[in-house]
Amino acid sequence: MTEPSKVERRSRRGGGRDARRTARASGNQGPAAPFITRQIAPVDILNDEACEIIENNAETILEEIGIDFRDDPEALVILREVGCDVQGERVHFPRGLARKLCSTAPSGYTQHARNPERSVDIGGMNTVFAPVYGPPFVRDLNDERRYATMEDFRNLIKLTYLHPGLHHSGGTICEPVDLPVTKRHLEMIYAHQRLSDKPYMGSVTAPSRAQDTVELSKILFGTEFVANNTVVTSLINANSPMTWDDTMLGALKVYARNNQAVIISPFILAGAMSPVSVAGTLAQTLAEALSGIAFTQAVNPGAPVIFGSFASSMSMQTGAPTFGTPEPAKVLYGCAKLARRLGVPFRSGGSLTGSKTADAQAAYESTHTILPTVMGGTNFVLHSAGWMEGGLVADYAKLLLDADQLTMMPKLVNGIDLSENGQALDALRETGPGQHFLGSSHTQANFEDAFWRSQMADNTTFEQWSSEGAVDSIVRARQQAVEMLAAYEAPAMDPAIEEALRAYIDKRTEELPDTDY
Amino acid sequence: MTEPSKVERRSRRGGGRDARRTARASGNQGPAAPFITRQIAPVDILNDEACEIIENNAETILEEIGIDFRDDPEALVILREVGCDVQGERVHFPRGLARKLCSTAPSGYTQHARNPERSVDIGGMNTVFAPVYGPPFVRDLNDERRYATMEDFRNLIKLTYLHPGLHHSGGTICEPVDLPVTKRHLEMIYAHQRLSDKPYMGSVTAPSRAQDTVELSKILFGTEFVANNTVVTSLINANSPMTWDDTMLGALKVYARNNQAVIISPFILAGAMSPVSVAGTLAQTLAEALSGIAFTQAVNPGAPVIFGSFASSMSMQTGAPTFGTPEPAKVLYGCAKLARRLGVPFRSGGSLTGSKTADAQAAYESTHTILPTVMGGTNFVLHSAGWMEGGLVADYAKLLLDADQLTMMPKLVNGIDLSENGQALDALRETGPGQHFLGSSHTQANFEDAFWRSQMADNTTFEQWSSEGAVDSIVRARQQAVEMLAAYEAPAMDPAIEEALRAYIDKRTEELPDTDY
Repeated sequence: MTEPSKVERRSRRGGGRDARRTARASGNQGPAAPFITRQIAPVDILNDEACEIIENNAETILEEIGIDFRDDPEALVILREVGCDVQGERVHFPRGLARKLCSTAPSGYTQHARNPERSVDIGGMNTVFAPVYGPPFVRDLNDERRYATMEDFRNLIKLTYLHPGLHHSGGTICEPVDLPVTKRHLEMIYAHQRLSDKPYMGSVTAPSRAQDTVELSKILFGTEFVANNTVVTSLINANSPMTWDDTMLGALKVYARNNQAVIISPFILAGAMSPVSVAGTLAQTLAEALSGIAFTQAVNPGAPVIFGSFASSMSMQTGAPTFGTPEPAKVLYGCAKLARRLGVPFRSGGSLTGSKTADAQAAYESTHTILPTVMGGTNFVLHSAGWMEGGLVADYAKLLLDADQLTMMPKLVNGIDLSENGQALDALRETGPGQHFLGSSHTQANFEDAFWRSQMADNTTFEQWSSEGAVDSIVRARQQAVEMLAAYEAPAMDPAIEEALRAYIDKRTEELPDTDY
Repeated sequence: MTEPSKVERRSRRGGGRDARRTARASGNQGPAAPFITRQIAPVDILNDEACEIIENNAETILEEIGIDFRDDPEALVILREVGCDVQGERVHFPRGLARKLCSTAPSGYTQHARNPERSVDIGGMNTVFAPVYGPPFVRDLNDERRYATMEDFRNLIKLTYLHPGLHHSGGTICEPVDLPVTKRHLEMIYAHQRLSDKPYMGSVTAPSRAQDTVELSKILFGTEFVANNTVVTSLINANSPMTWDDTMLGALKVYARNNQAVIISPFILAGAMSPVSVAGTLAQTLAEALSGIAFTQAVNPGAPVIFGSFASSMSMQTGAPTFGTPEPAKVLYGCAKLARRLGVPFRSGGSLTGSKTADAQAAYESTHTILPTVMGGTNFVLHSAGWMEGGLVADYAKLLLDADQLTMMPKLVNGIDLSENGQALDALRETGPGQHFLGSSHTQANFEDAFWRSQMADNTTFEQWSSEGAVDSIVRARQQAVEMLAAYEAPAMDPAIEEALRAYIDKRTEELPDTDY
């Protein structure tokens, strides 16, 4: 991986902050690992007895209350065939059936990237970071908040590609509203494929768009490779409470039948879309996830699938979603444990905030989400950088601020080195009371990568910081984004593949109507 | 506790943000508990076998390398008498001796406040938050960074008194450099005593000043009460590595002999004052803490004492201290476990940052410190609000931003409610697929205190936020500080006690020279 040094090499102004930033960047980063593997156990706040209560309640929901599968007669047929009690569109799962169906889901899978060094292993002790997903707006490099365009989409993919903190290119990093709804998915998928070599997500806004994603992936990876490997992971949100709609079910079926992965995600604003309690939200989330995962396995046993959970609290006074609060952190810790007990990978969390600007509120709330995400053992993290305003906005500056924080996570979860070198008894003997360790041979041998270093933080003195313009972190991040985008170079691609991708897109663009749905 | 509502009542401008803030404040806060008691286990990343390695290394440091006790011949006599091998000022503890001496230290203690409802229990599953300690500078309500004054000291004590997130008035909340060094401690102690009714810390800059703290406390609490109870907790920093100086030892002796509590705190910039590794820093911290705690018990067996640790990483390129990095978090988790094994309360962490302004960097770094602090099971937290610029600055705005975040911690560590009401199965039955929970009877019964609510975050829409001036969190915090200070009323005090305190201070001020040391 050569991007970060490429980016830094471009920094041509001499002295001051730029020189320091270059010095820092040439330091301990090294080639970034394609994902994180933890050495410490996930934080666990729900014991086995508590899990059994929640699991029992989820079974009660599935059996007694049931789950709606709407406007998709085929789904109802499939579910009836595997033993569900289907009444109208309401599907009741006899106690234990959903969990039994889930048992064919793999405990983890590899999502291949076109650059094999960037393929990610999703599940187990691993964590994969993907950027923000879904915002119709951006806050751009001029600090302007406006509707997102395809150019923003490409820029944010480029920044994600260049950043060592992000392992995955994500999906709808913003919604390019300047292209017709019917066609934009083609340019979005192509941008991921062409501008990055990290793994990516597929379209879910219509079954035909999911199919386009699969076809474009076949062109990029080869038809046989896609038949035998997972190259796309896509987001299937529940219409909580306890409802799946035909759009999501249709996309799910396309991906599952093609052995491509889906994230089955109850999407819950607790208090509105679930009970106003953590244990109630956990039971409902588990019931919805079980129903969706069971459905994928009914469609295609063994298809890769992730147990997802998006949970936010809401202000019970104004109805506004709130982030960085303790209740969603508890839902996350609990769901992560429930997913481990179910034996499937888990997705949740991110760097979430309701703030309108990348101020202290944004960073407090984001950190109060991403730390539980990582410490709780989440395997796939959407929204891990760039999310703003409750998901309405993708913020260029915050993408880099958050991603910088993500680069510390490998060191946070790798445990404590108890090797002889880690214990450093000789350094203690060599130095002794009242002396300093700066010149000790142990320090000299270890200082390069002893401590994680932020590439965005300013740790100079007040005097130096002031003399350089008293620039705060938002402004530093925007400066870095400008430099990175100017230095960006697309990863190489076989011209024949590039041509074939464009030909497919041009053909489909011709075929499809110009409508807004 | 009536302060917050008092503060809110003062908010006289109608509508908009103020009205909302008032509405929020009258909501779910209720009377704040005097400290936090956790229901979930502390995060533990150091297993018992690893602890034994670290503990063994600490014994090696104590026995083989030794600890310097400087310029305090009495300390050397005391330590020789309890079995140490004293060579010059270097004290060697035979293997196991320090730990054995520590066994008389209590596992916890109550620090009494003059308002009994604000007394705090330090140790066990409890966490107590105190504000920033030590900065010579403030960033004030005009966003000016300047030397701190006694007026700042009083203002920051008032804000701490008023804030439900802070349990403890702290100590040197800033250094009032407008008063002579010889006398300022008297006004500082008096400010804590008079302007707040929360527990406070004592002076440690000279043994005589520690004695003044004890004498003033006797006037406030009564001589007999102080003889039998702990009413002051004070900070004794090591001169790391492996050195105690006479100033700290002198203050320690005064407090220990008066049964007042001390925090024995190795103060370590890892890489400079300890080896550049987590395990090496843990062993050294433990050795220093053991030596200091053992000394307190040699001075007065049974005197209350806290195992302290202040650890930051440093930039090995520039020498600047860095905060919110993973290595200090690991030191904290490790030390907390070592303190639990030693059976004494633990102090560490806070809301630490190297940023110069309360921007995203400040909030990222602070949260990356305070969350491990709380999740790791820290009992006493200094610097939990207001710390800026690596401890050089006490920031009015950040004091309120951090303290607001602290108010979520009780809900973060109280576990998941699995009562029937918490499980909310009836709400799920009542609502069902595709409906919303806003009107359910369960929501109506629980919404008031279902979710923690920030008093500083803005969760309105972009449009509303913009129409109200697009105010970011620093500005909101400064506005709140102005309102709180204007609304402040000192807690009542018996005029005879007030007069006696002032008489003592006036006499001492007369006696003491006007010098700067």
